Amino acid sequence: MKKLLIQGADVLQCESDRCRILRCHDLHIEGNRITAVAPSESAAAAPDVEVIPARGLLAAPGLINTHAHVPMGIFRGLAEDVDIETWFNEYMWPLEANLTAEDVYWGMQLGLAEMISAGVTAVADHYFHMDRAAAAVDRAGTRAALGWAVFGSQGALGVARTASFAEDYCGAADGRITTWLAPHAPYTCDDVFLAAVAAEAERLGLGIHIHAAETAGQTEASLAARGRTPIGVLADAGVLDRPTILAHCCGVTAADIELMASLPCGVAHAPKTYLKLAMGAAPVLEMRAAGIPVGLASDGPVSNNTLDILESLRLMAMVAKHEAGDPRTLPVGAALTIATRESAQVFGMPDDLGHLAPGFLADVILIDLGGAHNQPAHDPAANLVYSTRASDVRTVICDGRVIMRDRRLLTLDLEEIKARVGESVTRLSQRVPEARIQLYRP
Amino acid sequence: MKKLLIQGADVLQCESDRCRILRCHDLHIEGNRITAVAPSESAAAAPDVEVIPARGLLAAPGLINTHAHVPMGIFRGLAEDVDIETWFNEYMWPLEANLTAEDVYWGMQLGLAEMISAGVTAVADHYFHMDRAAAAVDRAGTRAALGWAVFGSQGALGVARTASFAEDYCGAADGRITTWLAPHAPYTCDDVFLAAVAAEAERLGLGIHIHAAETAGQTEASLAARGRTPIGVLADAGVLDRPTILAHCCGVTAADIELMASLPCGVAHAPKTYLKLAMGAAPVLEMRAAGIPVGLASDGPVSNNTLDILESLRLMAMVAKHEAGDPRTLPVGAALTIATRESAQVFGMPDDLGHLAPGFLADVILIDLGGAHNQPAHDPAANLVYSTRASDVRTVICDGRVIMRDRRLLTLDLEEIKARVGESVTRLSQRVPEARIQLYRP
Repeated sequence: MKKLLIQGADVLQCESDRCRILRCHDLHIEGNRITAVAPSESAAAAPDVEVIPARGLLAAPGLINTHAHVPMGIFRGLAEDVDIETWFNEYMWPLEANLTAEDVYWGMQLGLAEMISAGVTAVADHYFHMDRAAAAVDRAGTRAALGWAVFGSQGALGVARTASFAEDYCGAADGRITTWLAPHAPYTCDDVFLAAVAAEAERLGLGIHIHAAETAGQTEASLAARGRTPIGVLADAGVLDRPTILAHCCGVTAADIELMASLPCGVAHAPKTYLKLAMGAAPVLEMRAAGIPVGLASDGPVSNNTLDILESLRLMAMVAKHEAGDPRTLPVGAALTIATRESAQVFGMPDDLGHLAPGFLADVILIDLGGAHNQPAHDPAANLVYSTRASDVRTVICDGRVIMRDRRLLTLDLEEIKARVGESVTRLSQRVPEARIQLYRP
Repeated sequence: MKKLLIQGADVLQCESDRCRILRCHDLHIEGNRITAVAPSESAAAAPDVEVIPARGLLAAPGLINTHAHVPMGIFRGLAEDVDIETWFNEYMWPLEANLTAEDVYWGMQLGLAEMISAGVTAVADHYFHMDRAAAAVDRAGTRAALGWAVFGSQGALGVARTASFAEDYCGAADGRITTWLAPHAPYTCDDVFLAAVAAEAERLGLGIHIHAAETAGQTEASLAARGRTPIGVLADAGVLDRPTILAHCCGVTAADIELMASLPCGVAHAPKTYLKLAMGAAPVLEMRAAGIPVGLASDGPVSNNTLDILESLRLMAMVAKHEAGDPRTLPVGAALTIATRESAQVFGMPDDLGHLAPGFLADVILIDLGGAHNQPAHDPAANLVYSTRASDVRTVICDGRVIMRDRRLLTLDLEEIKARVGESVTRLSQRVPEARIQLYRP
């Protein structure tokens, strides 16, 4: 079994809203798991051990993106400064009429390259042509929870589409891929469709990844049209009986939170999208107080416009302070616990990811705090939340394998990816309103 | 006269809330001024011209930071998750009891290194021991508007301190340094002190840089104690008859805005500090609608915790959308106009900075949009606001001189700076409450 030794790093560990840094420790890895974390030894490593010198670097768990539409990066910058209805109906859904399976393959690689460079080793992705997304993940060496997005208008074929992908690709890429069924949202899926997806998820023993209560407006519209909130709709359809990733939840009510707390769901939190599209603020504090896990997310790179989880981390903490009117809200330790342990929980792997300790999977990033913007490093944890940039991530290990070393990508060819995406730019940027793939009318 | 040719760049120009990109243009520079911007020519440059190849790079005006306390970077991370009163009284002011002139010299260099690396070529800095800050600016090759901060408790000596520095250093560093008188804030300066500073500013023909109406709470406290808002206090003291940089203004009233619009003041806007310290949101739209120029700012790196103006730009646009509840608010063109032309106006150099056109000073940054997080570059202007990172800045020219080339700093020695700051870290991090330099009690 392959052995890796990360030598002399300052190791970040988070637990129950507190974090600590173990100065100058060694991380021992065998195969794809961490076997030991111990004070650094000066003795030479055994000859069969690959050593990664990490003195002066901060070792953190690989970042987890709990909700994205990664391949949408190919449309980045094409839908700016518009309201959410226009964003869907005049931009995204007409643009996505252009989408081919190969666009997804190269768009996914582009986004994976961006995420690896930013220390993100795992992503819960919700999009189309996910067989091609899985091929990109296999190539990149990262971890992903993939769901093939479907709409109620697709009927039984849609249910079969998302279920058969989930069945076929569960455990793919040497186990680095998990799968989730992925109905789009309560406002694009009727009750019968949602119940059918929930039944398939139960049959397969899998979870469901869905947009829910994205704005207060959606909740009001749902109450008016269906007499229940979006969360109520999902609960009635049996969706929430499955492990569920609920994306956004800016529009959940107090009663929704009480209900959610009794069910196996987690919330994917993408604060940059909420600011940029003026969707309101998600009740992060209230949901966490009720015991609902919250994970960091980017959302798609057309609303974000990046896949940068360090930026999501910072915005989450700052918006929480702003909304509460109290700068003591969501302190550094809580923010980093969300970014690590709690994101792993939302991602469905609480005992395997988000922590650098024996028994956990070896998804590790090494961060260089030597840049002027991080100096002096009085408090590396505070730096990580408020000063560090994605570009400070130097080396990335996923599943026990080095996939970026000293900022050089080892699994993906960015120049090739840019060339292939570049060939399609003109075609991709033509909006085809008459062929829009859905209509936003919550 | 030294000649520089930036060849084949995509040149960003902003005007009246719109921006355009001139594809593949040459920027001609003689001495410290831009002499021409024209479609790129393939002909070889004359032998006395230094050529900077910039094909595929975005050329933008050097970024301007209209309000900071740059040397505070030496305290970065030492005051997290505390309310504003505690931030001042238990952290910053007891910490600043440790401050020496040499700390300012090395802290200023640290911050200038950070800013150059992030494309910031000009800063309006408001701090202590500013003779040493000026020496650092001279060495760095950047531009600065410096003010020596003084408190009312210093009496006539304080007035003389800020005035004599402003008089002595106006035009220093080959004209790259302008000076401003710098009383701290209405809540730390009484009416007599403010009037004395205003009189000195008038005598010297210089402007005033001051904190004002930082929060709604300060405005309420001022009304209770002095019967006037902080803006009213400054107007009555004659401060606002001078060109003025007003930092923050989250707590200005509608009447304040009307008054400010008739006076030669600009507002420095530092949105990251407002979020992080829960200070509220500044009325950027209302101030601009009244004709008051708004410039981007970082504030000090203990509240920010960086000096990253691209981050301020992004936060300004996103918070404006969030607060207005409308994503059409402050679109890309307006945000970039604030970042360029309007920041130059607040900085006091509207006809010299913030625009890449003949006659303007040659402060130019070259940005590489080739990273995965900026690709494909459907809309480079949107990228600049929402996707670009400080680390994408490749080359920086200030006053016609290259001060960073391909990310290598040419004027400052970061390793030396880190070593010198590092020597003082233990001494600097000891809080001395009994020696706090002021008491926050607005």
